[in-house]
Amino acid sequence: VTAKNHASLESLLELVPQTATKFITKNLPAAPVGSRGTFGGTLVAQSLLASLYTVPTNFVPTSLRCYFINGGDPTNMITYQVEKLRDGRNFIHRQIRAYQHNKLIFQSMILFSNQRNSNDAHDSLHHL
Amino acid sequence: VTAKNHASLESLLELVPQTATKFITKNLPAAPVGSRGTFGGTLVAQSLLASLYTVPTNFVPTSLRCYFINGGDPTNMITYQVEKLRDGRNFIHRQIRAYQHNKLIFQSMILFSNQRNSNDAHDSLHHL
Repeated sequence: VTAKNHASLESLLELVPQTATKFITKNLPAAPVGSRGTFGGTLVAQSLLASLYTVPTNFVPTSLRCYFINGGDPTNMITYQVEKLRDGRNFIHRQIRAYQHNKLIFQSMILFSNQRNSNDAHDSLHHL
Repeated sequence: VTAKNHASLESLLELVPQTATKFITKNLPAAPVGSRGTFGGTLVAQSLLASLYTVPTNFVPTSLRCYFINGGDPTNMITYQVEKLRDGRNFIHRQIRAYQHNKLIFQSMILFSNQRNSNDAHDSLHHL
């Protein structure tokens, strides 16, 4: 099951880098009939994926804040633009904005912490 | 493409209600090798789905805040517990906690607004 989910999520959420901080979805955004949340979940997950392209592998997400600003259009690709707010030794901040037709539809801010410097289990995703 | 994504995301993220506010994942959490973010994205998306079970259909997510508290275990199901923080005419607050082995691994707080009372396009996902 894990392997199957792995493959599916990978391909469903796949992003195509345009620049070091700009990414476009490979697939049209999923928008199931009757489900208000899946599209929102897709936006959050893809903004996290986009930000991970810009963060060293020893940093893991600690907290995330996002706004659903305008409804998405299921017939168009989404562009994610990552802004590097801060790069510290222990913490990294990223802001990600999602656009369709140059219109801002979603924004997230993600805080990453350096798991090598972590003395407790906080945000330790390394055993996954 | 949309139809395919629809089916896949639906099935990948599917939750099984245990009570009106408690849900368990149907599949093991996806944890792709080399990808630190997918599992985090899964947690956020499933916490949003769980909360939507407890919110009327005319409310849409406005903002979301979450903490990645402990690393997840890809070999066990995740339980999502929804707490109803507030039910107003225009705003609904939900807190969702995700557990594995009775250990808190993730927490989110989601604010929903009533799109019927909305005069602008804010959070209007109804045309999806």
